[in-house]
Amino acid sequence: MPRGDIPDHAAEYAGKTPASAKMFAESSRLHVNGVSHNIRRFDPYPFVSRSSEGGTITDVDGNAYTDYWMGHWSLVLGHCHPSVTRALHEQIGRGWMHGTVNEQAIRLSRMISDAVPAAEKIRYTASGTEATMYAARLARSHTGRGVIAKVDGGWHGYASDLLKSVNWPFDRPESTGLVGGDKIVSVPYNDLDEAVRVLGEHAGDLAGIIVEPVLGGGGCIPASAEYMAGVQEFVHRNGSLFILDEIVTGFRLRYGCAYTAMSLEPDIITLGKIIGGGMPIGAVCGIDDVMAHADDSRGGRSYVGGGTFSANPAAMAAGGATLEYLRGNRGTYDAINGMGERVRSGLAGALGTGGGRAAITGIGSMFMAHFAKDGEECGDIVDAGQAALCDQEKLRRYHFKMIARDGIFVLPGKMGAVSAAHTPDDVERLVAASEEFAGAEQGR
Amino acid sequence: MPRGDIPDHAAEYAGKTPASAKMFAESSRLHVNGVSHNIRRFDPYPFVSRSSEGGTITDVDGNAYTDYWMGHWSLVLGHCHPSVTRALHEQIGRGWMHGTVNEQAIRLSRMISDAVPAAEKIRYTASGTEATMYAARLARSHTGRGVIAKVDGGWHGYASDLLKSVNWPFDRPESTGLVGGDKIVSVPYNDLDEAVRVLGEHAGDLAGIIVEPVLGGGGCIPASAEYMAGVQEFVHRNGSLFILDEIVTGFRLRYGCAYTAMSLEPDIITLGKIIGGGMPIGAVCGIDDVMAHADDSRGGRSYVGGGTFSANPAAMAAGGATLEYLRGNRGTYDAINGMGERVRSGLAGALGTGGGRAAITGIGSMFMAHFAKDGEECGDIVDAGQAALCDQEKLRRYHFKMIARDGIFVLPGKMGAVSAAHTPDDVERLVAASEEFAGAEQGR
Repeated sequence: MPRGDIPDHAAEYAGKTPASAKMFAESSRLHVNGVSHNIRRFDPYPFVSRSSEGGTITDVDGNAYTDYWMGHWSLVLGHCHPSVTRALHEQIGRGWMHGTVNEQAIRLSRMISDAVPAAEKIRYTASGTEATMYAARLARSHTGRGVIAKVDGGWHGYASDLLKSVNWPFDRPESTGLVGGDKIVSVPYNDLDEAVRVLGEHAGDLAGIIVEPVLGGGGCIPASAEYMAGVQEFVHRNGSLFILDEIVTGFRLRYGCAYTAMSLEPDIITLGKIIGGGMPIGAVCGIDDVMAHADDSRGGRSYVGGGTFSANPAAMAAGGATLEYLRGNRGTYDAINGMGERVRSGLAGALGTGGGRAAITGIGSMFMAHFAKDGEECGDIVDAGQAALCDQEKLRRYHFKMIARDGIFVLPGKMGAVSAAHTPDDVERLVAASEEFAGAEQGR
Repeated sequence: MPRGDIPDHAAEYAGKTPASAKMFAESSRLHVNGVSHNIRRFDPYPFVSRSSEGGTITDVDGNAYTDYWMGHWSLVLGHCHPSVTRALHEQIGRGWMHGTVNEQAIRLSRMISDAVPAAEKIRYTASGTEATMYAARLARSHTGRGVIAKVDGGWHGYASDLLKSVNWPFDRPESTGLVGGDKIVSVPYNDLDEAVRVLGEHAGDLAGIIVEPVLGGGGCIPASAEYMAGVQEFVHRNGSLFILDEIVTGFRLRYGCAYTAMSLEPDIITLGKIIGGGMPIGAVCGIDDVMAHADDSRGGRSYVGGGTFSANPAAMAAGGATLEYLRGNRGTYDAINGMGERVRSGLAGALGTGGGRAAITGIGSMFMAHFAKDGEECGDIVDAGQAALCDQEKLRRYHFKMIARDGIFVLPGKMGAVSAAHTPDDVERLVAASEEFAGAEQGR
């Protein structure tokens, strides 16, 4: 929906969010678009949050929303899980910023190392953006080549090294002010023949390819096992690196990474989100041979951070508590994946995938709705282009209606994720609210 | 000191840090060089921290160190300041990760906006590296030009856009695997004529210059007011942007930025460290005209994050509590700046600046020692090259001796900073330990 239009249910929303309206006006004086992250803005204005607990986020007017945005999907256990809360309170008492090697970092790395075979060495960063930037740098350092490949619609953060072909139609600059973009090549997703053909054109200077096992920002679309295996085979045969971006999927679908269930052998893995338990984190992990380039005692090192806040004990403690809980409670994955499946089947029925009016994508606890434009039908959605060509305005109308009427928060236009704090009842309310939306749209 | 050599006092250190030795061995199995940040490693192995409180950091063997590293200088109030601790505990109870516009972010921005005139708009990031990356991008977007200038020895984090001419002799690549470095130009520091000459060579494509008011990583060296004014005048006359990196100096020397005391008018300011109270943060701030490029509703936007963790309420709460305390207790700056001055004068006497054996640089609460190489004398140190050509091995020997013998922690080879948690007695102990080092060196 173009900014400035008045969405349906705007009056209802305005009636219940007067404090948010006032505070967002101040936020708009202080921040471009009122936000620090453009996707957090939606029309007519986003609610301003005050607190969160379990499956719920609450705004400054006291409205509670069942939260499927869950901190950019970083909170697999939900908000304020008791184990993580306890760990954080304890760590606050012991200092949240040491700037040194600390035992919390070693503990978290031990768990990641045990669960992720390719993580022979780990370096922490403050964000996923930093982790993928280092992944690209390491691939270039290791191969002595310049080109990094990615897939159309792949989102790997904001670093200049990877900021290309994110948004449809994938062939326009994503941003002014970028340099180095000629060293980024984008290939089709889930189309192995075409991907290999494009990679082949750059084979001589191809440092590596970075790909998500499930497109996150690109539309919640799993890669086919055949595609991933084929791409990996090509790059390995070519002396290039296979980089898996598991920032969204790591510890989201199972205890460990998605890739181990796909029999892949990545050289570099990027992690973030869940491994920090919702505290700022990223990690670039990989096999010894590659990660060794970060060693500054050797000549020609690859400048790989972390940065001031890398391995800060607060994030390490929150991440450690999260993984420890998940390791000891594997049933958590059965529960959230089961609810995710019910969301997908429920939304499919509610929104009309049978009649081609919608498509539902996702896997495990992740889900996303896509609507056919008027006069069109949705088929299977297997790449970001297909997702982008769906009716984005209707998707935002759907999400906003649930915020305004139903107390359900999926960030407008984005995918959602079930957490361990959600209940089957929450899921049924989501399905019912979706049915109501579909019914109202038919009469629109 | 080359890694692998046995430093003086190594036996004494080993005797008191057996648990650190064991844990660092495990850390080395998990992390390249055993660390997430190469500068945190020192020989024979760094202690592993367990907790911190006030002016002290404590390792896993129970050794307490008076801490002048202070979380990469991010903790101006010391570890676990009661006000910040309280704010963090409260925020943990209200959720540490919302992923939404939140009232804590608005509150922190209000304080920054009031104290930093050029911060007409603010965007938060997870780190300083991200903030400076966006600063470079915004300058390029605003001017439509490609070249970013920096100063020799200037450190602005790890982004490919600024990773050049950090380490002496400033003309070698800092890293393998970088692209886009041809668009970075480095100019001499504190040498206005030569800086302007080099900038002039790139005038037609000069998007902006980024400079720290006090070189941090480059040797704790203040810029002269004349230099900053002259550089600003050149770039503004040239239609280029003046970017001040105040990640180290913001709220460190006074309540607000260093630049306002220098009558400068930057277009972009980068902040970090102190404004997050030790929690992961960065901020790119600037005048409306420039920051407006981040607005994604306009064509040709500049892709300026935040990212997942931008404006997370935990960092916002810790930063807000820190600034609120400093705003209400301006005497804090008198206290830490006074102790800083006593450190500098004390170290000057102890280490022998009068005889040219050492030089002490710094300002406010920041200080750094530099030693003359054998047979040479230290003069005034006004740029990073002069600092780099001092006796780095002796500097590390000095810092390590204080870690091993005196329970005083300055990260080997780096500058230190006094915090509000330090006392005049702490400072006298630092001076005495330095005197002892100088005496032992004379007999060496």
